[in-house]
Amino acid sequence: MKVALLQINPIVGDLYGNAAKIKEFANKAKGADLIVTSELALLGYPPRDLLLYPDFIAAAWESLQILAKDTKSLPPILVGTATFNKIKNGRPLFNCAAFLKDGKIREIFLKSLLPTYDVFDEDRYFESGSGLRILKYKDKRIGVSICEDLWNDRDFWQRPRYHFDPIETLAREKVDFIINLSSSPFTIDKQKLRESMISISAKKYKIPIVYVNQVGGDDDLIFDGASLVFDNQGKLLARAKSFDEDVIVVDLNSKSTAINDYLDNKEELIFKALSVGLNDYLKKCGFEKALIGISGGIDSAIVATIASQSLGCKNVIGVLMPSPYTSAQSMTDAQRLAKNLGIKIVTLEIASLMKNYDKALDNAFKGFKKDITEENIQARIRGNLLMALSNKYEALVLSTGNKSELTVGYTTLYGDLTGGLAVIGDLSKTQVYKSAKWINREGELIPKSIIEKAPSAELRPNQKDQDSLPPYDVLDKILSLYIEKHEGPKQIVSKGFDKDLVKRVLSMVAGAEFKRRQSPPTLKVTSRAFGSGWRMPIAARTF
Amino acid sequence: MKVALLQINPIVGDLYGNAAKIKEFANKAKGADLIVTSELALLGYPPRDLLLYPDFIAAAWESLQILAKDTKSLPPILVGTATFNKIKNGRPLFNCAAFLKDGKIREIFLKSLLPTYDVFDEDRYFESGSGLRILKYKDKRIGVSICEDLWNDRDFWQRPRYHFDPIETLAREKVDFIINLSSSPFTIDKQKLRESMISISAKKYKIPIVYVNQVGGDDDLIFDGASLVFDNQGKLLARAKSFDEDVIVVDLNSKSTAINDYLDNKEELIFKALSVGLNDYLKKCGFEKALIGISGGIDSAIVATIASQSLGCKNVIGVLMPSPYTSAQSMTDAQRLAKNLGIKIVTLEIASLMKNYDKALDNAFKGFKKDITEENIQARIRGNLLMALSNKYEALVLSTGNKSELTVGYTTLYGDLTGGLAVIGDLSKTQVYKSAKWINREGELIPKSIIEKAPSAELRPNQKDQDSLPPYDVLDKILSLYIEKHEGPKQIVSKGFDKDLVKRVLSMVAGAEFKRRQSPPTLKVTSRAFGSGWRMPIAARTF
Repeated sequence: MKVALLQINPIVGDLYGNAAKIKEFANKAKGADLIVTSELALLGYPPRDLLLYPDFIAAAWESLQILAKDTKSLPPILVGTATFNKIKNGRPLFNCAAFLKDGKIREIFLKSLLPTYDVFDEDRYFESGSGLRILKYKDKRIGVSICEDLWNDRDFWQRPRYHFDPIETLAREKVDFIINLSSSPFTIDKQKLRESMISISAKKYKIPIVYVNQVGGDDDLIFDGASLVFDNQGKLLARAKSFDEDVIVVDLNSKSTAINDYLDNKEELIFKALSVGLNDYLKKCGFEKALIGISGGIDSAIVATIASQSLGCKNVIGVLMPSPYTSAQSMTDAQRLAKNLGIKIVTLEIASLMKNYDKALDNAFKGFKKDITEENIQARIRGNLLMALSNKYEALVLSTGNKSELTVGYTTLYGDLTGGLAVIGDLSKTQVYKSAKWINREGELIPKSIIEKAPSAELRPNQKDQDSLPPYDVLDKILSLYIEKHEGPKQIVSKGFDKDLVKRVLSMVAGAEFKRRQSPPTLKVTSRAFGSGWRMPIAARTF
Repeated sequence: MKVALLQINPIVGDLYGNAAKIKEFANKAKGADLIVTSELALLGYPPRDLLLYPDFIAAAWESLQILAKDTKSLPPILVGTATFNKIKNGRPLFNCAAFLKDGKIREIFLKSLLPTYDVFDEDRYFESGSGLRILKYKDKRIGVSICEDLWNDRDFWQRPRYHFDPIETLAREKVDFIINLSSSPFTIDKQKLRESMISISAKKYKIPIVYVNQVGGDDDLIFDGASLVFDNQGKLLARAKSFDEDVIVVDLNSKSTAINDYLDNKEELIFKALSVGLNDYLKKCGFEKALIGISGGIDSAIVATIASQSLGCKNVIGVLMPSPYTSAQSMTDAQRLAKNLGIKIVTLEIASLMKNYDKALDNAFKGFKKDITEENIQARIRGNLLMALSNKYEALVLSTGNKSELTVGYTTLYGDLTGGLAVIGDLSKTQVYKSAKWINREGELIPKSIIEKAPSAELRPNQKDQDSLPPYDVLDKILSLYIEKHEGPKQIVSKGFDKDLVKRVLSMVAGAEFKRRQSPPTLKVTSRAFGSGWRMPIAARTF
């Protein structure tokens, strides 16, 4: 049997647009017996609280019916969508796959395992489905599963999250192959994990597995595509493109088909993922151009590089906003970076505005000493200027903070946190340096002195990050254990870190929660990013 | 049997502080046979992602053991806490009640029904518990339930969320009475709902029900306390104080005990709830003082009134930041308001800063017309000044936007949205006017002209809200249907609203999502507020 994997980049909520895209791609699936989309492809994943609107679910059903009619002459399609739970208790919806054939919606297969951790909230909307799991078509018994249904193998996971394994059930029912409609967000090691997990299941049950993933960026989430087919020995038979839309048609009886490469250089992978996330966020929000405050430091240099390669250099505007504390070197570096990238520059001096704020606040500040207040005012002048350009030029401001800064709060709310999207907010400072080196692998894009000089916010004379923060290599290790590994102070100290340092760092993290709560959406590349997967209290004692 | 209801205001995460408070209040429960706290009282509700840290759960268990020892000489206590799920699959934790007696943790009762809707995320952390539900103590069989366990009666709810009713099970087991440890956030009609629901269950099963609620503010959530005891006829036997800590000891065989009043005036109720939410947010964040930008408009007037009554007028600073577009009337009104409230005023003129921004941007804006950009610059100058005062004075900025503005985006990100807490962000403009009238019920606090003049942002000459927005009485009805009732455009239009108007309004709502994402936490008083209960996509087509 020949299965077509439709790997599309839907727009969340754009029911008729997504249906049109499914139809368009289905038409490209030449020679297929059966066409399969990703999870919730008709709605776009994740639809979030749009799912709470019965009007939206009803419209999804309508557009599904139209899609069925419009694809009447094509091979049948399994489409990821949502439907009402008509039983009079439980959650209101099911996450499901609809089988479209000969112009009609023929059968519905329900998702059983509902991820409700990290960025996932499926228990908020969906009832766990049971019932029909096997599609009988062309003398084949095809097991239909949806995303998380595949992620509960008790031999693979140390601690399965659920008490039931739909794949095991399908295997017991001796299906000919298993289909999985998925929308699995990208993280750095996710594809390796997926491939090893799916391969082990295919081999263990001696059943081929067809895995169709979503692709593209949706707010903070990036989907990497790279849909997969494994044969009944657990051998990789096909892999679709990563980070791009694709249609592949795979004969499950063949020995080898198209196996597209997956990026195996970590820095390249991150660069590609952030490029897609950035580009889709802008496009899906209706923007063409991006604005970036270029400080002459490494963070804005990386963001400008990603933006210029992802949007095209003519769509990126670098904004230089020197103050009296900005070094000549920073200005030279910023200008050189812009030249290397081929982006336009706008320069706005802020010295006069700083003086003007001092004057405006002179009376109110009588009797107080200079402190961090004056540094924040500078950062917020820059924020205001960036947003003014954003309004006037209709360009989205990209925020340039890295994860280390966001974590310890070494950043000004409404200042450098300003922006519609935090592009590298999930990269530690250590990772930022690695990425910079990779960007320069074939020659200088980011000026060497930007990479080599000591990091500084340049908000007062001779300021260096290391005056206020522990060395980044130590800090980033502590932060990674705390943020990504969920380790508390005792566990972290037991790994050899200084107790007082850990206490100081975690107290900085807690104290910065109010800033993160008001931060822009942050593109996620690690197992735990700030945003929808980070839900910490503010008015609390944490660690 | 005499049961003591411990209605405390815990601090989220402050395990040892909360344990000390439980001990202190348990000591006040004179004559009780059994003492009961609210849900997760030891951790504070909601602990959110602190629950993902095994170090935190281990520390909770340690502090529980110490609490057991420290209260050895007291009557036994049922304490709301969390514990590890030791079975090797499923979610990692249980939400539970621990029975402390004679210095030890004797038994654990698990919560079965886990709310995962609106602001609740319990499926993210907890496994649904089964097993032991009945505490045998002093010849009584006592049914132990936790919060949501009580909220699934199939006769009460049109659509029960769960397939199992723990209360029905306990009734079948013929318990003598039922205890419910709860942390049920305040909304305007919640107490009426609770009382009618609990009364109906008590009457239906002929079993007394003891309901212990948390009190106090935690980030966006406000808990109103007002813990309850109903007898086996469904008659109210006792009600603890609302919006304040309390201990009441109730003899379940008595006919009448202390029934504290619950506020039945809607405006008074809202005022009280917001006062508590505001006060607790500041205190739990370590602030004493609040800063408010006073515009001479009604929104900042209400926020200043709530703040001055909740924190004391000496802890509130009103900041007047007139521009050339600020009317003389607004300045007079603002000063008069401050005088009425007895709060301090700081006045900062912004005309010179506005000019300076114009100058700084002169080159960059060449060839562009004046538009909303210049209005936003003004709002952000004010945001910068407020934050500067906040830094210098160590006072929290209160954001003054109302729900109508936040919904349609009639607000400037990093401008008037600036602040640590949005006090009236869940009140529609219509409700704001009602609240203002109620505040003035015994005489003028808010100057009459503030209430009577047409609302204006005063960001350009002669600007009025109604130039850009539909009349608030129509707008607020549409917004309430969309936001609080989850009705989509078809449903709203079917109620008689103009189709194009509905389309225009919902498109404004969608377009403002990026602003709400970066808004301060918003005190919740309706069934659906912006914040943890509102999870909409940004880069999407919604309605």
